[in-house]
Amino acid sequence: MASNEFDLIARYFEQQAVTRKDVALAIGDDCALLDIPAGSHLAVSTDSLVAGTHFLAEADPQWVAHKALASNLSDLAAMGAAPAWVSLALTMPAPDEAWLAEFCKGFFALAEYYNVQLVGGDTTKGPLSITLTVHGFVPQGQALTRSGAKAGDWLYVTGNLGDSAAGLSLILGERACRDEALASTLIDRHYRSQPRLLAGQALRQIASAALDISDGLVADLGHILKRSGVAAEIDVDKLPLSDELRQFEPDLAKAQQLALSSGEEYELCFTVPEQNRGALETALAHTGVKATCIGRIRVGSGLSLVKASQPLDWQLTGYDHFAE
Amino acid sequence: MASNEFDLIARYFEQQAVTRKDVALAIGDDCALLDIPAGSHLAVSTDSLVAGTHFLAEADPQWVAHKALASNLSDLAAMGAAPAWVSLALTMPAPDEAWLAEFCKGFFALAEYYNVQLVGGDTTKGPLSITLTVHGFVPQGQALTRSGAKAGDWLYVTGNLGDSAAGLSLILGERACRDEALASTLIDRHYRSQPRLLAGQALRQIASAALDISDGLVADLGHILKRSGVAAEIDVDKLPLSDELRQFEPDLAKAQQLALSSGEEYELCFTVPEQNRGALETALAHTGVKATCIGRIRVGSGLSLVKASQPLDWQLTGYDHFAE
Repeated sequence: MASNEFDLIARYFEQQAVTRKDVALAIGDDCALLDIPAGSHLAVSTDSLVAGTHFLAEADPQWVAHKALASNLSDLAAMGAAPAWVSLALTMPAPDEAWLAEFCKGFFALAEYYNVQLVGGDTTKGPLSITLTVHGFVPQGQALTRSGAKAGDWLYVTGNLGDSAAGLSLILGERACRDEALASTLIDRHYRSQPRLLAGQALRQIASAALDISDGLVADLGHILKRSGVAAEIDVDKLPLSDELRQFEPDLAKAQQLALSSGEEYELCFTVPEQNRGALETALAHTGVKATCIGRIRVGSGLSLVKASQPLDWQLTGYDHFAE
Repeated sequence: MASNEFDLIARYFEQQAVTRKDVALAIGDDCALLDIPAGSHLAVSTDSLVAGTHFLAEADPQWVAHKALASNLSDLAAMGAAPAWVSLALTMPAPDEAWLAEFCKGFFALAEYYNVQLVGGDTTKGPLSITLTVHGFVPQGQALTRSGAKAGDWLYVTGNLGDSAAGLSLILGERACRDEALASTLIDRHYRSQPRLLAGQALRQIASAALDISDGLVADLGHILKRSGVAAEIDVDKLPLSDELRQFEPDLAKAQQLALSSGEEYELCFTVPEQNRGALETALAHTGVKATCIGRIRVGSGLSLVKASQPLDWQLTGYDHFAE
């Protein structure tokens, strides 16, 4: 059993199923050589997942791989970009082939689903961590940014919110749940989110601003508000909650607070001008992704929460890697 | 003094001097949006540097930054690509602003020199490491790969070889050197190599194969030989050695062995067909980079070392991150 770096890379990473025509030269040289369609921007995003910070070292390697790639692809979704390629920098303490085989299973399953080709990377020795750089395309002038929201636009989110935080509290043992099936569903929602790639592409020329929810709705929406120079109001009773979350957290206010602050949801948060609301329904219909209107963009700055038209004073913050 | 992740990123990474016209949207959204010149491939390469594996945690942050970016740009040089953009994933145990300020100084000095724009990244909490993904352009059909060497081609390297290994042995305390100026020059050569970007671009349509020396000449040349299906012969007396290396290691055979195995040199190793040797000299003249012919490509497989036309049986290997 060889433990040579080059053999490891060759064995696990050169044997993927995806081969795209826009890859002129893939893994095995100093660089990958790639082609971009005419009239498109290249969209690029980088994410690191570090053992002990973003996942437990003993977590299922398939789930870790899925989470790493899904969260990175989610950034392409948030721009309305179609995914194409990914680079993988993997740092591990020792060449653990069993771990690597499981990791690759999870990684390539998701990569194949979205026709994303692994085009390069680096395998190094050190504390376990994964850094991915995804590349995709978006037609020039059609990218969804954080800066386009206008007062009067409607505020939407895809899917449901709060399940990821509920799953994480179970994984970390902060909460317990006697219903094993329920616990396993919520844990799965934390690890195995689906990047909203088709929805993101469908929102081109419909949404005025968009991003993906990685640090919690409140924290992430703050970026849109700041970059767009606007305020927003969310009606907490409109937040989309799964049946599983309502079972897990019967207290409605607590469930809504979870939905507002839950990180790593990888749902899209986006704004839609009044005149595009009709087109939105049609555009999302074929993607199988639901979108829920949860509020509206206003003149001013900051976020207000309301319930039955009354202001709420809930204190919520997003996830900060360096906060104590 | 704020230690919030977003403030940190904003303060240190959004204030760079380079602004390229091919960057439609830089740091601050979910993805960067970038434009590739028509008729060019996008060249992409990823490298990780991990504290304890690739550098000492207490090393000068400016040097660490230089080394990380220089080694990554060197991969573009090896393909004949012109550099354009870089993504930076930085993992650090705590938001150490003094370290970050020094790191940025080293990073942006080199980035500005080569007009490379930082277009994105991720800042996370964890053991100190740096992962960079560089992007560049190379005209379609002109990239230098590892697979084009043919029997009869001449074998070249840029610059001198061995200084980086000598410097590293001093940094690690494996060797001592009473001459402080000499020691400091060699340590500087280890940390502050210059990526051979202009030389790489000058070699387009002249070299038949190329790569950069990161794991040592013998190990890296092996990749060209394998991918091209050829053998090579190196005359060790032709290896370019600096005066400083000869002072540091007066035993010529030992100095030559250092030159053959020294990693992290970031010099280019390339092959040139007989009919292009005249053009080579002209092409490199304006880059200020010397190239030395050290041997020839042969029919067969594997590498032979010779001295005064006699075979040598030196046993040398490259750097393997996972070797014991």
